[in-house]
Amino acid sequence: MYTSNADTTPRLFLPDSLAADQPVALSEAQAHYLGRVMRMGPGDRLRLFNGRDGEWLARLDAVGRKHAVCVPETQLRPQAPDPDLWLAFAPLKREATELVVEKATELGVARLCPVFTERTNTSRINAERWRAIAIEAAEQCERLSVPDIAEPVRLPALLAHWPADRPLAAAIERQPHAMLHPLGASAGLLIGPEGGFASLEVELLRRHPFVVAAGLGPRILRAETAAIVGLALLQSRDGG
Amino acid sequence: MYTSNADTTPRLFLPDSLAADQPVALSEAQAHYLGRVMRMGPGDRLRLFNGRDGEWLARLDAVGRKHAVCVPETQLRPQAPDPDLWLAFAPLKREATELVVEKATELGVARLCPVFTERTNTSRINAERWRAIAIEAAEQCERLSVPDIAEPVRLPALLAHWPADRPLAAAIERQPHAMLHPLGASAGLLIGPEGGFASLEVELLRRHPFVVAAGLGPRILRAETAAIVGLALLQSRDGG
Repeated sequence: MYTSNADTTPRLFLPDSLAADQPVALSEAQAHYLGRVMRMGPGDRLRLFNGRDGEWLARLDAVGRKHAVCVPETQLRPQAPDPDLWLAFAPLKREATELVVEKATELGVARLCPVFTERTNTSRINAERWRAIAIEAAEQCERLSVPDIAEPVRLPALLAHWPADRPLAAAIERQPHAMLHPLGASAGLLIGPEGGFASLEVELLRRHPFVVAAGLGPRILRAETAAIVGLALLQSRDGG
Repeated sequence: MYTSNADTTPRLFLPDSLAADQPVALSEAQAHYLGRVMRMGPGDRLRLFNGRDGEWLARLDAVGRKHAVCVPETQLRPQAPDPDLWLAFAPLKREATELVVEKATELGVARLCPVFTERTNTSRINAERWRAIAIEAAEQCERLSVPDIAEPVRLPALLAHWPADRPLAAAIERQPHAMLHPLGASAGLLIGPEGGFASLEVELLRRHPFVVAAGLGPRILRAETAAIVGLALLQSRDGG
């Protein structure tokens, strides 16, 4: 399915525990959003989730310029497990990177693993910005959790610490491969930088038995498109 | 495969016919790009395609502020057929719409069909802008053609004129459907607006035998993500 015909009640993520009648404080940005942007006041309803306690309908109790308090009333949905899918990708230009973070969140990815490769043009990531984008995407797509963002590592370290029982689909370009398909309950997808992996990196990938070289179709895709397409294909099982 | 390890020779689309030693004039914008942005001069090489005559290596013959002439020398690739895949979609907000046009071009779509539905918030499209985005995406992804952009129509007209022998996968949300899968050599994908199809529209869709109700997985996706995921799944056949 896609898009909601949906409940348009504002939906916010927060770190606090959620339980009936236990007031929670919202952040300054959330207070601003509810009070100034949405023009909500005491008694208005919103939805809250924290990645652990499901989704709650809550009543806004007080809202000021910098503070807001609300009270969870009813659990709308219990917490449900996310697909155990990790996405490792080489940071791209800002817009493309942000698109990957947003779309991976929508597609249910549990963990984002930034990885630096030979041809990655950047050596750091703005994890705070990634997290803000992931939270906003989760709020908008009715997801009950926000993906973890792993510490950025270089490719050899990623592979050295990768769990041996988690297949890692790697889109190694310019080589004919069987089309990427679901790899089981726990899996990962590795997407290289715009220039592709260096040949020593391809050799390194091939030496790891958990790496599954996989194709994404006959066309040349930009890296951010490859990430979205790969995540779609990995989850292309009926009921998956 | 994805991304090119690729030839970085500039690659431009133009409408003119391409044949060995027959000079062609470039547009003012292309002259500016080659001369000012890329700082190229007479004798430098570029690549040209027009959607009919394959891809050519060409020699820049003259480049000025507003004019440039180049001469095709060698055909690098013959024209190859595109997948016969059409994407009908309800225009979204500007950024989301432009993302769909760009990614659909990368994913090989032959025709973009803008369609207005009950819950579409706009009643016109900027076809010139769509075409510019599609051309730029085709230039960057090594594609040999640019998708057609059909005249925008309302949903009933789209369905009334749709070829009966072309299956149209429709992502009708909030209903459990078998996962979208390849539907044959000629197919279409229909993606509704952010608010989904109205119930009368769903009924109308169901009355057309060429419409295949199809799921995009268990998660709620934004409309632009649904378009990309749907195109990936429709082409998820090995060698497809």
